Amino acid sequence: MSAFDWSHVFATRSERMRASEIRELLKLLDQPDIISFAGGIPDPALFPVEAIRKAQDEILADPKLAAQALQYSISEGYVPLRRWIVDFMGKNGVPCTIDNVLITCGSQQALDFLAKMLLSPGDTALVEAPTYLGALQAFNAYEPRYDRLIPDGGNVTPQTYADAAAANGGRVKFAYVVPDFANPTGVTLSEENRRKLLELAADLEVPVIEDSAYQALRFEGEAVPSILSLDVAANGGDIEKTRTIYCGTFSKTLVPALRVGWIVAASPLIQKLVLTKQAGDLHSSTLNQMVMARVAETTYDANVVRAIDLYRKRRDAMMAALARSMPKGVEWTKPEGGLFVWITLPAGIDGAELLARAVAEERVAFVPGKAFFATDAMSNTIRVNFSSADEAQIAEGIGRLGRLIERSIG
Amino acid sequence: MSAFDWSHVFATRSERMRASEIRELLKLLDQPDIISFAGGIPDPALFPVEAIRKAQDEILADPKLAAQALQYSISEGYVPLRRWIVDFMGKNGVPCTIDNVLITCGSQQALDFLAKMLLSPGDTALVEAPTYLGALQAFNAYEPRYDRLIPDGGNVTPQTYADAAAANGGRVKFAYVVPDFANPTGVTLSEENRRKLLELAADLEVPVIEDSAYQALRFEGEAVPSILSLDVAANGGDIEKTRTIYCGTFSKTLVPALRVGWIVAASPLIQKLVLTKQAGDLHSSTLNQMVMARVAETTYDANVVRAIDLYRKRRDAMMAALARSMPKGVEWTKPEGGLFVWITLPAGIDGAELLARAVAEERVAFVPGKAFFATDAMSNTIRVNFSSADEAQIAEGIGRLGRLIERSIG
Repeated sequence: MSAFDWSHVFATRSERMRASEIRELLKLLDQPDIISFAGGIPDPALFPVEAIRKAQDEILADPKLAAQALQYSISEGYVPLRRWIVDFMGKNGVPCTIDNVLITCGSQQALDFLAKMLLSPGDTALVEAPTYLGALQAFNAYEPRYDRLIPDGGNVTPQTYADAAAANGGRVKFAYVVPDFANPTGVTLSEENRRKLLELAADLEVPVIEDSAYQALRFEGEAVPSILSLDVAANGGDIEKTRTIYCGTFSKTLVPALRVGWIVAASPLIQKLVLTKQAGDLHSSTLNQMVMARVAETTYDANVVRAIDLYRKRRDAMMAALARSMPKGVEWTKPEGGLFVWITLPAGIDGAELLARAVAEERVAFVPGKAFFATDAMSNTIRVNFSSADEAQIAEGIGRLGRLIERSIG
Repeated sequence: MSAFDWSHVFATRSERMRASEIRELLKLLDQPDIISFAGGIPDPALFPVEAIRKAQDEILADPKLAAQALQYSISEGYVPLRRWIVDFMGKNGVPCTIDNVLITCGSQQALDFLAKMLLSPGDTALVEAPTYLGALQAFNAYEPRYDRLIPDGGNVTPQTYADAAAANGGRVKFAYVVPDFANPTGVTLSEENRRKLLELAADLEVPVIEDSAYQALRFEGEAVPSILSLDVAANGGDIEKTRTIYCGTFSKTLVPALRVGWIVAASPLIQKLVLTKQAGDLHSSTLNQMVMARVAETTYDANVVRAIDLYRKRRDAMMAALARSMPKGVEWTKPEGGLFVWITLPAGIDGAELLARAVAEERVAFVPGKAFFATDAMSNTIRVNFSSADEAQIAEGIGRLGRLIERSIG
C-alpha cells in the first residue's frame, strides 16, 4: 500500500504558507561561537522572573484562584487584564472600555485573526516595503494581493490603489504599519505621516492595522502619538467611531513566552474577533493571563525602564561599531528605539549570499532583507538586531561583518 | 463624522462565524442556584494543582530553565513534551517520532489549523449528525459544505459523497469523528465501523480527523483501538503511510487552561502544520509546555484513574436519575465513558424552548441539541453533561428536568 498523497487534499491557501529563512537562522543561535544579530528576540536578562514566580505561587496556593486559573474561561480574555489594558491605553490617549479589548496569543495571533476576518482571496493588503515578515506570513494564508503602502502618500492617489485592487478582482481591505521603530527598519512614522495615513484609509474606506510591538521602547526623542490615539482625537474621543486596529503585546516589554498580546478597536470589530478567537483556540491560557495581569500591575513600568536602559546602550554600541567598521557605500538607519537596524549594502551585494559567507567565514548571523518584502525585494539589504548580543559582541560582530563586506566589495 | 462601517471590509468567511448558544449558556453558570448540565467542562477538583505548582517552581527557580521557559521557542513544540507524546502514542499502538507531533493550543486550535490547511470554500467536510459544536465553529470559517458522515456506511456509497461534493463545485476533503464517548452523544464507534470509515476515506482519497478528546476516560468495557492505530497496523506499522490525523489534548485528563493539545500524523502534514502554527501564533506558551511535560510525566496515569473514578460515579448517578425521572417517550444514550449523555425528547418538544423554561421554572441548564448539527437539526434533542455537577445535584437536577418534560408533554 503506498503512502497517502497529502498534496491532493491541501487547500489552495496552504500553498501560500512557506518556510521562512528566519526559522533556519534561529537554529544558528544554538551554535555558541556564532554572534547572532538575527532573531528579534528580547534579552532574557530582562524577564521579570521573580514577579512571574510570585504571581504563579499566589494564584496556585489559593484553591479558588487555582481552580479559576486552570479552568476554561471566556474568549474575550481575563477581565482584570483587560482592565489593565484599558488603563494603559487611557494613559496613552485612547479612552476605551473592556469591550474594546481582546486578549490574543501574542500579536502574531492578532495579525492572523485580522487577516482571517478581513481578507478574501485576491483582496489587497497595503504594506510597507520592507515590512514585518511575520505579518506577511500571517496574511499570506488568506491569499491577498499586496500593494506597497507609502505612508506619506508619495505620488500614489487613493484611486490608484483602489483601481489596482479592483483590477485584481478584489478590494483594498486594510493598511498595515509598524509605526514605531519598525521591524525591520527601526524607522518611526512621523505624526504628520500618521495623519496622512488615516486620510488615505478614510479615502479608501478601510481600517489601519497599527502594530505597536515596539512603541514602549523609545530611547530618546519625543513620543509620537499612536495612530489610534490620533484617530480617537479626530472622532471627538469616541473609539467607536475609529477605524484603527491597535495590536499590543507584552513580548518585548515583559516576556514573550506567556504568549499574551491584545487588540484594541471599536467594539463591532472586537465582537467579530471574539468569535474568531472562540473558533480558533477557545481562549488564551487562563493562568498566563492571570499571571500577566499581576506582573503588568507591579512590574510593567519598571521593566520598560530597564529595557530602555539596556537596549539604548546596545543601540549606541551598534551605531559606534557601524560607523567604525562599515566601508564606504554602506548605509544604515538610526533608530530612536526598538530592536533593529536596517543596513543597505552597495548595489550588487546580495544579503542572502552575504549571510552564507558571514556564517561560514566570520561566524556572524543576521537576516537577509529580502524576506521582508511582499513584492519587489531589495536584495542588497540586511536586518541586524541589537537586543540579544552584548556590547562587546556587537563591537566584535559588526567589526567582522564590516571586514566581510569590505572583501565583498573589493 | 460617522462611525466607520466595518461590515464593508469583512471577508465573506467572517459571515460564517456566528455566536453559539453555548456562550450564552456558560453565563448561566455564574448564577449559583442553577444546576448546570451545560458546559462540557472538567471538575476542577481533578486539576493536579500541586504538580503544576511544583513544576512551575522548579522551572522558574533555575535561571537557565527560566530563561528558556519565558523566551520564544520553536513552532513544533517543546521537545521533551513531544517525546512524552511519542511514548504515549507508542503505548497505544502508534509508533511515531517527534517529527510526527505538533503541539497546539488545545485541540480547538488543531481543528482550526486542519480546516485552514484542507478546506477551500465549497469543499465538503464529512461530519456526523450530531457532531462536536466546536469543530463546526472551527470549520465554518473556511466556508465548507457539510455532508452527513454515516460511519458504518449505511446505504451511502463513496461515489454518492464525491458526486454531491463535485456538484457543489468542490471535493470531499476529510471525514471528522469523535470516535470515543463522542461529544455530544457519548456514543463510541465500534472497531468494525472504524475500519469501514478508513475504507470510505481510502475510496474518497481523503484523511480522517480523529478527535480523541475523551478517549482516556473509559469507565467500563474494552478499549477500542484508535483509528490511527488501525491505520498504522494496516500499513505495516508505518505512520508515514497513514491518512489519519489524531488530535489529542490534556484538557479533559489534566487541565484545560494551560491550553496544550497535540496533533499526530504523517510528517508531510505535520510540516505544513508547523508553518500554519508559525503564521498563526509562533508557538504555544513555552512555560506551559515545560510544565505540562513534567506534570504528564509524574501525574498523567494517576490523574486519569481519579477522573474515571469520579466521572463513573456521576454517570451512574445520571443513569439512575434518568431512569427514575424521565417520562415515557424520552430516550437517552448509555455512555461507557466521557462526559456526556444525549437525550431525545418526544417529537414536538423543542430543546431550545425547553431550555428557556428549564432555566425560568426549574433552574436547570443544558445545551439544546440543534447546536450540534451541521444541517437538518433534530430539534427534539438536548445534551447533558455529568462532569460538573455532583451526584446529589445530578439527582435533583434530572428530577426537575423530568418534571418539566412531563409537564411539556402533558
